[in-house]
Amino acid sequence: MSDTDRITEDEAVTGAGALRDAEGHISAAFTDAIREAIDAAAADQLKQLMADVAHEADVADLIEALDPEHRPIFIQLLGADFDFTALTELDENVRVQILEELPTETVVEGMRDLDSDDAVYILEDLDAEDRAEILDRLPVLDRAALLRSLDLPEESAGRRMQTDFIAVPAYWSVGQVIDYFRDAKDLPETFYEVFVIDPFYKLLGTLALDKLLRSKRQTRIEQILDSEVRRVAATEDQEEAARLFERYNLVSAPVVDENGRLVGVLTIDDIVDVIQEEAEEDIRALGGVGDEELSDRVPAIIRSRFPWLFFNMFTAFVAASVIGLFDGTIERMVALAVLMPIVASMGGNAGTQAMTVTVRALAAREISRRQAPRVLWREACVGLLNGGMLALMIGTVAGMWFSDLQLGAVIGVALIINMVVAGCFGVLIPLTLDRFKLDPAVASPVFLTTVTDVVGFFAFLGLAAWWFGIGF
Amino acid sequence: MSDTDRITEDEAVTGAGALRDAEGHISAAFTDAIREAIDAAAADQLKQLMADVAHEADVADLIEALDPEHRPIFIQLLGADFDFTALTELDENVRVQILEELPTETVVEGMRDLDSDDAVYILEDLDAEDRAEILDRLPVLDRAALLRSLDLPEESAGRRMQTDFIAVPAYWSVGQVIDYFRDAKDLPETFYEVFVIDPFYKLLGTLALDKLLRSKRQTRIEQILDSEVRRVAATEDQEEAARLFERYNLVSAPVVDENGRLVGVLTIDDIVDVIQEEAEEDIRALGGVGDEELSDRVPAIIRSRFPWLFFNMFTAFVAASVIGLFDGTIERMVALAVLMPIVASMGGNAGTQAMTVTVRALAAREISRRQAPRVLWREACVGLLNGGMLALMIGTVAGMWFSDLQLGAVIGVALIINMVVAGCFGVLIPLTLDRFKLDPAVASPVFLTTVTDVVGFFAFLGLAAWWFGIGF
Repeated sequence: MSDTDRITEDEAVTGAGALRDAEGHISAAFTDAIREAIDAAAADQLKQLMADVAHEADVADLIEALDPEHRPIFIQLLGADFDFTALTELDENVRVQILEELPTETVVEGMRDLDSDDAVYILEDLDAEDRAEILDRLPVLDRAALLRSLDLPEESAGRRMQTDFIAVPAYWSVGQVIDYFRDAKDLPETFYEVFVIDPFYKLLGTLALDKLLRSKRQTRIEQILDSEVRRVAATEDQEEAARLFERYNLVSAPVVDENGRLVGVLTIDDIVDVIQEEAEEDIRALGGVGDEELSDRVPAIIRSRFPWLFFNMFTAFVAASVIGLFDGTIERMVALAVLMPIVASMGGNAGTQAMTVTVRALAAREISRRQAPRVLWREACVGLLNGGMLALMIGTVAGMWFSDLQLGAVIGVALIINMVVAGCFGVLIPLTLDRFKLDPAVASPVFLTTVTDVVGFFAFLGLAAWWFGIGF
Repeated sequence: MSDTDRITEDEAVTGAGALRDAEGHISAAFTDAIREAIDAAAADQLKQLMADVAHEADVADLIEALDPEHRPIFIQLLGADFDFTALTELDENVRVQILEELPTETVVEGMRDLDSDDAVYILEDLDAEDRAEILDRLPVLDRAALLRSLDLPEESAGRRMQTDFIAVPAYWSVGQVIDYFRDAKDLPETFYEVFVIDPFYKLLGTLALDKLLRSKRQTRIEQILDSEVRRVAATEDQEEAARLFERYNLVSAPVVDENGRLVGVLTIDDIVDVIQEEAEEDIRALGGVGDEELSDRVPAIIRSRFPWLFFNMFTAFVAASVIGLFDGTIERMVALAVLMPIVASMGGNAGTQAMTVTVRALAAREISRRQAPRVLWREACVGLLNGGMLALMIGTVAGMWFSDLQLGAVIGVALIINMVVAGCFGVLIPLTLDRFKLDPAVASPVFLTTVTDVVGFFAFLGLAAWWFGIGF
């Protein structure tokens, strides 16, 4: 990569080496050099070290690699050289810690130069008091735009939008638009399209920059604008907006208020974050963790994980009481106790497979209730066939282990039953939760484990009690 | 959304209603109308129905909603009205099925108008023979570009790149570039930046369109180009490229060959797909499913799921043999058999939580080996505290259930041991796998279950055997 090359060339000057090591992590030598400069309060030295670390993502990774107490000092020493955009790339905990420790004056200064979406992103994590204090000191115009965004629901498209955009009237010519670009001083930093509006700010269409560049100067905007615009309502959920971007491969999209007036623009870089967050949420939910981050401390982690364990405790007791029903049977045939976890765990794994596929299909909107019977039937077949093959192997091994082929047959049949049930419930549970507007990724695993444990233990122990004629 | 509105207005004309229902699924009424047109081989009627379904993503969703045998006929009836780009939005199975059934002539015709990245995407799924047949009939220039991409490793950046791009010499002026845009006939469909090259096609820098538009006509390109370009090597893994896009919020990036010559451009829409695939892969791996799709048939599903179940079978037998060690103990105290799954399953859940967080942190490159001791210590604390709280509850209930407070104490201690071990191994297993360049998402769950089952059963039954003085 070019920037690594460049930093390596500077090595002789700074002595700190490259920002990143071969694996892409921030290098220890570089952070050591930064740390020294901070300890010596040597602002010039720090600025020289940072001169080549231009991108906010690199600055953010570096901040995270520093000790917490060094982070605010780092920002203050850099002064005007520090771009507050880097804060948006930080872990939430780190960001909040820094904002709490920095003097309000420094924060207000830094926020002045931010794009509105970045400013909202930073402000929404602060408590009401700090937020009000910062907003109070910002210029009136900025403040109004920020307040409008902050008034929208959390996780709405309006929270992620940039309120700085370019809008031109339809009667302008291509030449007028280009001249406007050449003369205007306060254009957004980057943009990919121009919006076309009527006098009441109602969106008439968009114009991609490449189309603008291909048209003759005298062409009227109304002749070339694209009126089939996929627009996003400011109050719409950010997930919905992300789905629109994905489906139609958008790079940016206009955001409109309830009257169809243009209020902002969503760009793909914000949407990429949303897409990642959504996938991340599903993985975490299926794994039974809340929205914890790697920088979280022990109490936060416990808050994120305890509820899931607590619910699973009930599941575990339900399963145990099923076993309790058969304590007499187990007492007389202890091999059952040895083998029973096999039936439950294989069912659990098979159910998790069906559930994973269903949860993802729901998230991607690939499955509708109409297809449920077909999917269910397929899962039953898969359960029967996979169960059959495994039953043969497990039954043989179990039968030989305890020199009891009938026991092998019993575990085999129980396994097939549990795997068919597991496959079907792996589909039914997420579909049902989705129907009742509950998040299938969060709640499915607990319900599924309950089913596969109960059915597994009941089928195996019940079948054995009946077959061998051992009462409970 | 505007297009839904538009289609609704047309309802009176077509009688088919909107393409999508309120939930965003393809509407049954619309597919019925399409099906009727196909059955009647009424090309005009079909074209009229499809006149408003312009976007390839909508066309693809519609194709997936049709019966398999209707899909190729649908494409043939639409003829030149069908944009082959829609094929890239289909599920792999559906795409392959359609391509196998369509006459080669139709496929070649359709491929002619495709962007190179879309053509590669379609060709790479075909078997060598079909691929060669299609390539043979394409124009020479297109064929050469496609062959170059197809020669690169699968899942490399070069496979996803578009070979159609705009490159200009550094000595041109802004005015010359704009005039070139206005006159050139075969520009790429959309583009966000212009590349600046030397006479040997070596990349000198890029120029965003907005920057071009803001500059005076007489400005030389070399004065305004951005030379700090993050370029991607054609052979680089697509995941690495995606990480670059994410980190630096890129919209497009130049792809260069081993000599630094510009060979193509990667755009964010392709990268969004890669990002999604990566997250998807981790979810599937953790859930124990291969790369199956919702349209897969039973044999494909079994191939995707059986290996995981097979490995878990060994895990289950290992756990069972641990229980087998204590069969004498269980025979004399059957309550142990009833309670033992609680210890194993709570440990399994706690371990899964730690593992999920670690696997994601590894995927996001948020964790390095240097931090391992700190993370491990934190997981041990979490295990101790969560384990302690649950031990208190579970121990009390178990003690009352079997009127044996000592049994409650034994299960409590065993639970704490298992949860601390589970937390630590939830971190250690993925880190170790990653160190040996194995995919932590694929292999971690099996190893983790083995550990939590073995430790859970061993700690509980062993402790009970020792405490109550019951030999094995």
